[in-house]
Amino acid sequence: MLQDFTDRHSDLPDCIDGLQTPCLLLDEGRLDANVARMRAHLDACNVAFRPHLKTAKSLDVTQRVLPHPSGPATVSTLKEAEIFAKAGVKDMIYAVGIAPAKLPRVLALRRAGIDLAILADCRVQAEAIAAASADGPPLPTLIEIDCDGHRSGLVPEDAAEIVAVGRILDAAGALRGVLTHAGGSYGDRTPDACAASAARERAGAVAAAEHLRGAGLPCPVVSVGSTPTAASGADFAGITEVRAGVFMFFDLVQAGIGVCTTDDIALSVLTSVIGHRRDKGWIIVDAGWMAMSRDLGTADQPVNQFYGLVCGPDGVPIPDLVMVAANQEHGILACRPGRPTALPDLPVGARLRILPNHACATAAQHDGYVVVRAGSDRIHGYWPRFGGW
Amino acid sequence: MLQDFTDRHSDLPDCIDGLQTPCLLLDEGRLDANVARMRAHLDACNVAFRPHLKTAKSLDVTQRVLPHPSGPATVSTLKEAEIFAKAGVKDMIYAVGIAPAKLPRVLALRRAGIDLAILADCRVQAEAIAAASADGPPLPTLIEIDCDGHRSGLVPEDAAEIVAVGRILDAAGALRGVLTHAGGSYGDRTPDACAASAARERAGAVAAAEHLRGAGLPCPVVSVGSTPTAASGADFAGITEVRAGVFMFFDLVQAGIGVCTTDDIALSVLTSVIGHRRDKGWIIVDAGWMAMSRDLGTADQPVNQFYGLVCGPDGVPIPDLVMVAANQEHGILACRPGRPTALPDLPVGARLRILPNHACATAAQHDGYVVVRAGSDRIHGYWPRFGGW
Repeated sequence: MLQDFTDRHSDLPDCIDGLQTPCLLLDEGRLDANVARMRAHLDACNVAFRPHLKTAKSLDVTQRVLPHPSGPATVSTLKEAEIFAKAGVKDMIYAVGIAPAKLPRVLALRRAGIDLAILADCRVQAEAIAAASADGPPLPTLIEIDCDGHRSGLVPEDAAEIVAVGRILDAAGALRGVLTHAGGSYGDRTPDACAASAARERAGAVAAAEHLRGAGLPCPVVSVGSTPTAASGADFAGITEVRAGVFMFFDLVQAGIGVCTTDDIALSVLTSVIGHRRDKGWIIVDAGWMAMSRDLGTADQPVNQFYGLVCGPDGVPIPDLVMVAANQEHGILACRPGRPTALPDLPVGARLRILPNHACATAAQHDGYVVVRAGSDRIHGYWPRFGGW
Repeated sequence: MLQDFTDRHSDLPDCIDGLQTPCLLLDEGRLDANVARMRAHLDACNVAFRPHLKTAKSLDVTQRVLPHPSGPATVSTLKEAEIFAKAGVKDMIYAVGIAPAKLPRVLALRRAGIDLAILADCRVQAEAIAAASADGPPLPTLIEIDCDGHRSGLVPEDAAEIVAVGRILDAAGALRGVLTHAGGSYGDRTPDACAASAARERAGAVAAAEHLRGAGLPCPVVSVGSTPTAASGADFAGITEVRAGVFMFFDLVQAGIGVCTTDDIALSVLTSVIGHRRDKGWIIVDAGWMAMSRDLGTADQPVNQFYGLVCGPDGVPIPDLVMVAANQEHGILACRPGRPTALPDLPVGARLRILPNHACATAAQHDGYVVVRAGSDRIHGYWPRFGGW
């Protein structure tokens, strides 16, 4: 009698009203529009596009996002590489500096015919890659460059070290190029600032490539990307490919940066009102941090969205109603501090949608996407996602 | 050839050294000791224990934590109730205020012989429960009481509303008692403050029960709990059961509150060094927020652990080395700001363990637990966990 309880999605309702809450909604129309817009922009810039699959971790989304079923693609874990490889993606970059203990998994994928490239930013990694390449075909490697001081990589000015790492890789036939990620662009607040980040990202990657070429080393790939810089960049001279991931769903952080509006955000968490604390000006819902994530990425933007911006069941934002606090399975909605908006009348059982700060983080809290379209309450399907490493 | 890649845990190594990173380690000895300590404490206090299963969401952990295979237990989602019911747990409280649209799932579990109780804190919910009880046996309901202003519930002083909700439930045969959760105790910083929170929690629940009894209504269950108050309370007079969840694993937030030490923390994330930024005093590891969660629960405690406290591969903390920042798959380790500790020499490939701020949040980022024991590098097993609603 209890057998069917845990396989709920085999029994998906026709309409949003029939869904249990909380659950993750994906607006298919917005996804398609976001992908078309980024593609058109990069096509106009005459640069190749290598989407990052870490945001969605879904075979269904991947089919809509990749330029071709075989790629090219970017991944953030070897598990993504392995799963997408099984689904036919053949050209991938694992865009996290390699831990030597992961090289056997990389080699296994390459032996299976997958062109998986990896990252290194130091001699220890380059030597481990060269050693692992010694017994067979080389492991194509990009040297990671740090264009804005936010994380890993060699700084573009460090020609000596870039060339030293490049020489070790080249001697093993493993040097494929350079890669940088303008993660600092997440701190930008205007399109102009994003455009400046894009120019800095391009300049850093091109400078690093020139260091290698100046030393007589090959550098066929010059890879850049982040959603703000990919969306804002106009000049990609010297760049061979652009990576971006969050653009496919967008989120409140990206809206705060200015590269989308809330109308472009394709993800939302459907939730139900479960109580009120009128003495405190609170509405309690059944989506807490387990459904939203603990990401507070808009906290240092001009408009703090706290745990997310509240929308009606149709996905239209309710001005200044935000999730101000979250427990594991409770969200507390209130008017944005300092804005004396009247709290809307939302009875127990009312349905709402919450727009997420960070699409990658919120999506990771869910097993899959209930696919919908703006302006309709019909459910178009359920797209599973995976996690893990 | 690619078939086995995604079922890695069928091929678990014998020793920690063979694990891919990041992954979640669970120290079985610490788990058992934490459970034994809480049981002994509550036994000595002569009060029943109803563990909260939301922290682990694992059948294996549940077997070690429950007083009896059939319960009693607390759950935070109906999916937990459904999965634990299939595994033989028969006595559960779903400790989140009920959304009326969830009542059919509650009824289905009860029809299957599961004694699942639910929560309500307003007349609308009570009326929906009464209506759902009209066609069959009643749905046992606890009135949620707010003992410290942190979330849902009726305040203990609101006798009129407590009795009004109680009368609606009682007329349907559905009134089982009162429940409160001293969530505010997470803001405590000393054992004395926790003991005061426990006293306030007890007083609020008992007062609410007395309001019901004074109105001639039954109140057989008076349920309280949170890890800090369960661990610190000494007087449970008038209380019929205590709930707690995070105590089984403990975490840095609980250590900051003072109800455990870092030596009691049973969970850690195993990670590998993947790079250095010596110019910035950073060590880069392959555990980012995807592995740790975005929980910064110690940020407003006297000792800010940022994204987690770093330990050697043996689980022994490295003084003042913390994860100061996190991207999706990158963690940045540095000395605690203001502490001029020398950065330890940790080469690329070195293994570390990171203690989490919040066990519930970090565990939720993983598909399961690699089971180990302090003082040994042997792996004892893999315990899967589930998510979703």
